[in-house]
Amino acid sequence: MNKQWWLEPCRVPDEAARQAARQRDALLTKPAGSLGRIEAVVPQLAALQGRARPSAEHLFIAIFAGDHGVAEEGVSAFPQSVTGQMLANFVNGGAAISVLAKQLEATLEVVDLGTAALLSLPRVRHLSLGPGTRNFARESAMSADTCRLAMQAGRDSVLRAQQQRSELFIGGEMGIGNTTTAAALACALLGCAPHELAGPGTGLDEAGVAHKRAVIERALALHAGSHDTLGWMQRLGGFELAALTGAYVACAQQGIVVLVDGFICSVAALCAVRLNPACRDWLLFAHRSAEPGHAAVLSALDAQPLLDLGLRLGEGSGAALAVPLLRMACALHDGMATFEEAAVAVKHS
Amino acid sequence: MNKQWWLEPCRVPDEAARQAARQRDALLTKPAGSLGRIEAVVPQLAALQGRARPSAEHLFIAIFAGDHGVAEEGVSAFPQSVTGQMLANFVNGGAAISVLAKQLEATLEVVDLGTAALLSLPRVRHLSLGPGTRNFARESAMSADTCRLAMQAGRDSVLRAQQQRSELFIGGEMGIGNTTTAAALACALLGCAPHELAGPGTGLDEAGVAHKRAVIERALALHAGSHDTLGWMQRLGGFELAALTGAYVACAQQGIVVLVDGFICSVAALCAVRLNPACRDWLLFAHRSAEPGHAAVLSALDAQPLLDLGLRLGEGSGAALAVPLLRMACALHDGMATFEEAAVAVKHS
Repeated sequence: MNKQWWLEPCRVPDEAARQAARQRDALLTKPAGSLGRIEAVVPQLAALQGRARPSAEHLFIAIFAGDHGVAEEGVSAFPQSVTGQMLANFVNGGAAISVLAKQLEATLEVVDLGTAALLSLPRVRHLSLGPGTRNFARESAMSADTCRLAMQAGRDSVLRAQQQRSELFIGGEMGIGNTTTAAALACALLGCAPHELAGPGTGLDEAGVAHKRAVIERALALHAGSHDTLGWMQRLGGFELAALTGAYVACAQQGIVVLVDGFICSVAALCAVRLNPACRDWLLFAHRSAEPGHAAVLSALDAQPLLDLGLRLGEGSGAALAVPLLRMACALHDGMATFEEAAVAVKHS
Repeated sequence: MNKQWWLEPCRVPDEAARQAARQRDALLTKPAGSLGRIEAVVPQLAALQGRARPSAEHLFIAIFAGDHGVAEEGVSAFPQSVTGQMLANFVNGGAAISVLAKQLEATLEVVDLGTAALLSLPRVRHLSLGPGTRNFARESAMSADTCRLAMQAGRDSVLRAQQQRSELFIGGEMGIGNTTTAAALACALLGCAPHELAGPGTGLDEAGVAHKRAVIERALALHAGSHDTLGWMQRLGGFELAALTGAYVACAQQGIVVLVDGFICSVAALCAVRLNPACRDWLLFAHRSAEPGHAAVLSALDAQPLLDLGLRLGEGSGAALAVPLLRMACALHDGMATFEEAAVAVKHS
């Protein structure tokens, strides 16, 4: 494999399948356009899956977890021990994404890229890239090699999804401190100030948010310079963000549709699109998060999410909540009668 | 039964169940409030269903169809024959709501209140209140007795839903011309002008919308006066709007949660709340329609719908699309582990 595999070309959407889906849609017994976003998403899925009648039944969810050295700056409402504790909760079925994965009959895999507490949990893939990243407010979060390993971990999940013939991929994340990392990375990539992108995360109060912004401000000054996307990812972290970035590029290369979750996943999507712009076609966006910085990241990606429900949990939960909309969109497209089949009169010409 | 059954009291929400659901929610392994609207809806469902762990599995969908005399004014993009043709499509499985009902494993019943063409279709309940309403731009749409019969038809559907122990009720509608009727009724009840509430419906062009507004203007002048809600329903119609109104009030009286669909259903909800204000508690709103008048009706009802997907199909389809959100909200509430069960540390105090 090319050492810079993320630069390899993405699968090209199938325009004939898109056109075939559009033509079928026009024949179905409903006023044209009356299913709005639900009908608009079908030709896109058709183009990506290369078939006129797409499907979103086979769902693969990979949760990437990692700790963040910057947590020592006191930027989260929760203690760092929660990252590891939640890994156990994911595989034991008690976390939100565990419940949703079961509801959706999805494959759920949990990848521990490196947590502060060294863990050994059944049914968790422990990669142990380190005891979390280093504190990016003081030094680079990780080495270039570690960043590549984290990206490769994301790609490996996608290859497993592909082996299972998955039709839809959701990446989730867990990592105390990761809204700080994501906000810092988005500031660096978009040229924004911390007050524009850093918010309360899992529940900071006003003073906590001000402190978080100051920490990011300091880090951006420390790392100031003209770095490429990989350079920023290495300097600011985190492990799970790099894994998600690798996963999104790999999905586009392998031809699996992605449903992007909230703020952190969207920052990883931004990294992916900066590394390999053609992967943008493969990314659907599930929801507009309550985290205030999400709007700027979505706007930079020209993304219109399906849902807007004030979610800010992470774990891929918001993406999971949007899956039934895609499934019902496909079922409608596949199952509705045409005007001719149903002998229904068409619109006045 | 009291002849004015719609004035009978509604079931009172169970505040102890609401409180129990809130207490459980606070213990679940997620930051407080992080599931946004998804977690907020659970205590409401709990209060309505009188149990700390609510459910939205047993779903009853009733489609009410009727023709509108005002169609002769040329206010729709489709010919009036479509109303009857779609009735067959509903029961034959080819319509959008048929596909969605199957996906959701819902009971689907189809009630023909009165169509221009006299029909006899297997699996359709034909009530034959008339060959559609009369043209409200020239005379009253129906008699007071007919309006009562249509409302009773809605109540009868709810009683069947109750016999099946349904946990959630969706009313849908079909009737060529019914956005004109709904817009006229909303103008009368809200004191708005037609240009504020009448839009393209199933697909009128600009000239078509202008004509539709002029027809409503003329009708409102014809029926000018101080009428009560029932008086307006009788004057402007339609059969399916009256049935939906009756169904919504009956759900609140019988203790079944309602998921309200788009523009036309929301106007029926407005009628229901005007007739019996306590029924408002029982109404959840599924989506914000593309029909421009919907915003004013939602605002008058102080309703925040779950979805905003540019839908404008009707048939109850938008409400059906929101059902998985309610089901997943209930599954999360029921299935997630508590901080204690999962041995996850709580937020810094």
